[in-house]
Amino acid sequence: MKYDVVVIGGSAAGIIAAKTAKLDYPEKSVLVVQKEKVVLIPCSIPYTFSTLKSVEEGIMSIDGPKKLGIEFLVDEAVSVDHENKMIKTSGDKEVEYDKLVLATGSTPVIPPIEGSKVDGVYSIPKDYEYIKKVQPELKASKNVVVIGAGFIGMEMSDELRKEVEKVTLVEALDGVLPLAFDKDISDYAAKALSENGVEIRTSSRVKRIKSENGRVSGVEFDDSTVIEADAVILSIGYKPTTKLAKEAGFHMGLTGGIWTDEYMRTSIKDVFAAGDCVEHKCFFTRKPSRLMLASTATFDARIAGGNLFGLRMVREKKGNLAIFSTSIEGVSLGAAGKIETTSRAEGFDIIVGKAQSRDRHPGCLSDSSIQYIKLVFAGPSGILLGAQVVSGKSAGEMVNILGVALQNDMTATDLATLQFGTHPLLTSAPTMYPIVDAAKNALREISK
Amino acid sequence: MKYDVVVIGGSAAGIIAAKTAKLDYPEKSVLVVQKEKVVLIPCSIPYTFSTLKSVEEGIMSIDGPKKLGIEFLVDEAVSVDHENKMIKTSGDKEVEYDKLVLATGSTPVIPPIEGSKVDGVYSIPKDYEYIKKVQPELKASKNVVVIGAGFIGMEMSDELRKEVEKVTLVEALDGVLPLAFDKDISDYAAKALSENGVEIRTSSRVKRIKSENGRVSGVEFDDSTVIEADAVILSIGYKPTTKLAKEAGFHMGLTGGIWTDEYMRTSIKDVFAAGDCVEHKCFFTRKPSRLMLASTATFDARIAGGNLFGLRMVREKKGNLAIFSTSIEGVSLGAAGKIETTSRAEGFDIIVGKAQSRDRHPGCLSDSSIQYIKLVFAGPSGILLGAQVVSGKSAGEMVNILGVALQNDMTATDLATLQFGTHPLLTSAPTMYPIVDAAKNALREISK
Repeated sequence: MKYDVVVIGGSAAGIIAAKTAKLDYPEKSVLVVQKEKVVLIPCSIPYTFSTLKSVEEGIMSIDGPKKLGIEFLVDEAVSVDHENKMIKTSGDKEVEYDKLVLATGSTPVIPPIEGSKVDGVYSIPKDYEYIKKVQPELKASKNVVVIGAGFIGMEMSDELRKEVEKVTLVEALDGVLPLAFDKDISDYAAKALSENGVEIRTSSRVKRIKSENGRVSGVEFDDSTVIEADAVILSIGYKPTTKLAKEAGFHMGLTGGIWTDEYMRTSIKDVFAAGDCVEHKCFFTRKPSRLMLASTATFDARIAGGNLFGLRMVREKKGNLAIFSTSIEGVSLGAAGKIETTSRAEGFDIIVGKAQSRDRHPGCLSDSSIQYIKLVFAGPSGILLGAQVVSGKSAGEMVNILGVALQNDMTATDLATLQFGTHPLLTSAPTMYPIVDAAKNALREISK
Repeated sequence: MKYDVVVIGGSAAGIIAAKTAKLDYPEKSVLVVQKEKVVLIPCSIPYTFSTLKSVEEGIMSIDGPKKLGIEFLVDEAVSVDHENKMIKTSGDKEVEYDKLVLATGSTPVIPPIEGSKVDGVYSIPKDYEYIKKVQPELKASKNVVVIGAGFIGMEMSDELRKEVEKVTLVEALDGVLPLAFDKDISDYAAKALSENGVEIRTSSRVKRIKSENGRVSGVEFDDSTVIEADAVILSIGYKPTTKLAKEAGFHMGLTGGIWTDEYMRTSIKDVFAAGDCVEHKCFFTRKPSRLMLASTATFDARIAGGNLFGLRMVREKKGNLAIFSTSIEGVSLGAAGKIETTSRAEGFDIIVGKAQSRDRHPGCLSDSSIQYIKLVFAGPSGILLGAQVVSGKSAGEMVNILGVALQNDMTATDLATLQFGTHPLLTSAPTMYPIVDAAKNALREISK
């Protein structure tokens, strides 16, 4: 068979690359080749454990793409023959392409520690069959230890504590979400989690996972203390899935992802790549990075899909901006760009501005939450480097306000003189809109 | 008495001008002169009728400003003697100033129709004593007619329908919120309101308010139909409160507000003005406008307060951007910049892009709402002219994302390649983030 566009991978990047291609080039035939019969909305996976009624509710619908005329092949791509412009599948199919998009995603990192493969030790791959299989086992556990307090570790702990007797969240660094947030911000999430019964153990490095009769029995730390466990979740991160690309001779980046240019073109003609399998670049320094976010994946995919047959969608000459959010027991946190600790580590001369408010006004409104904003600016330019938000559920969009500010090189003065809208039931009071107040406070620091 | 800074008016603009002055110039003495003992958070006034437990819950706290060392005088300023740099009050006080800020606000427009002053006809001034007095009367009514479906009319109708038997909302133009939103957007709010029992009557011009024994009995329309009423609320708009400024010889603008430059300096040396009493300027055309929003008032006030003793806070050379939001029965609407109808009326050549999503993902999450975005771009530059949002409660901050985009002259391409963050519990799916999809759809319109 032959298609104008072949996309390998049916998760966020693959679907959006296919959809963008089909909408931008309606006359072209588009095929998505995906290993699994159904694909889970990646970020929804933790929520399939309790908040959602079933794993099925987390399935990403492909009705829309199918209606557009995109075809799907459930099969595993096992090789790319770029000289003959075709791929081969484990089902022995050969599919020719004019343009190919690699969207092969990422897989959990399994740490090389003793016991990481015994029964009762799980990871959270983006894999419907696996999640479907392990979910009842995990829910039937009594004493779950989650190793790694990144987003998945935090969210899994929060969901599982509603289902099992005891959940302990373990993190080697000082504080939860240590790479994503400064500690003064992430402490809000840690507090919410521990108030709801999750035991948090930070600055605790795991030495090994103990087992009895081939089944997990506990976790031993570097200081030789041991905690009991009948289930362990490894959530220390993900690595790009690149076997296919490596074997086909694609140029790989420093951090192990597929190298692409700003238009998501790989080192091989007519082949694009998008999503977690790609090496991203820091927005501020253009250093290679392992940024793996569904939103970033769809960003890549829109660029790839829209530019397959010519550079029609000019991309601002920037790297990848990390923007993310999470919600733990009603406390929502978001970050965009650099945090204080990573800015200092990078060598930036920084000025920090903070402000606190409520996300409704008056603050006595029943669904009002605290709102806390922390902005990091580069000196002496005053250009925004990063923002962190604690709020109610609007944190998810507030951090996007700051994402837009970052993408426009806005300064502390720009943000202190920002025009914004407010409403009692929806936002902070205009008299204490915390983005503006935090910027103004940073300016006052500069004037000191 | 003598103060370095005297501010006339204790609402959003006055308080923020005073607070900014005190924080930026801590050594200066600052006095706020306000007519009322307490001031209501202006946008919260409708919510004091039902959502909040009492009018008192809507009072703006001045504990913060007082703690900063700002002083308050409850008295009415009746004249400005700018030659001697002093104001006089109705309590016969003379207060000298070095810098003066006029923040005298606005008052309801009472239409010149028969019956507009009989008993049982109310307006919604930003006045604690008045609201306190009329609230029990209005709640004891059976049949309330609200004239004017702007924000206050909509929100008052929504609150009162929870308290009284029948509420009818009347609007002369076609659709609710007709100046703020295009009809395809405002219809969401109209639907929510009417589903909750408010009778909406658009394209209906009121001829007169009927009365019996000096008390309102009904409303008669231009087509001579009559509806009964035992209470009427006039909510057709506000006008700047400028008696003081006019009498003191300040230069006034075309629309009746006090004229200022970009730094909120009036025509008279050492006197600034901020808020609803000021004539604003359209962000896009710099035409004079009567934009009256608490957020705009605080923006003015931050500029005025920060620049009282020298231009330390450089202001981007822009007019005033209208950004607002409201929430009707769980459907929240926001707009920033121009809408489709006003863009066309102004003569802009426009391209519209729309997209629909849900504000959570998967959409089956229990608190998920529809999310609908409409973007208006100017052709052929592709620069964003305006945005409208329908969503759950995050509409209030989503519209601020688009406000920041407007303040940076972002184009359809910029927004179609925007980097953003998402989370299942907080935002739309990254695969269908509606701001990006709407921009992309506009680009597809252009390519056609």
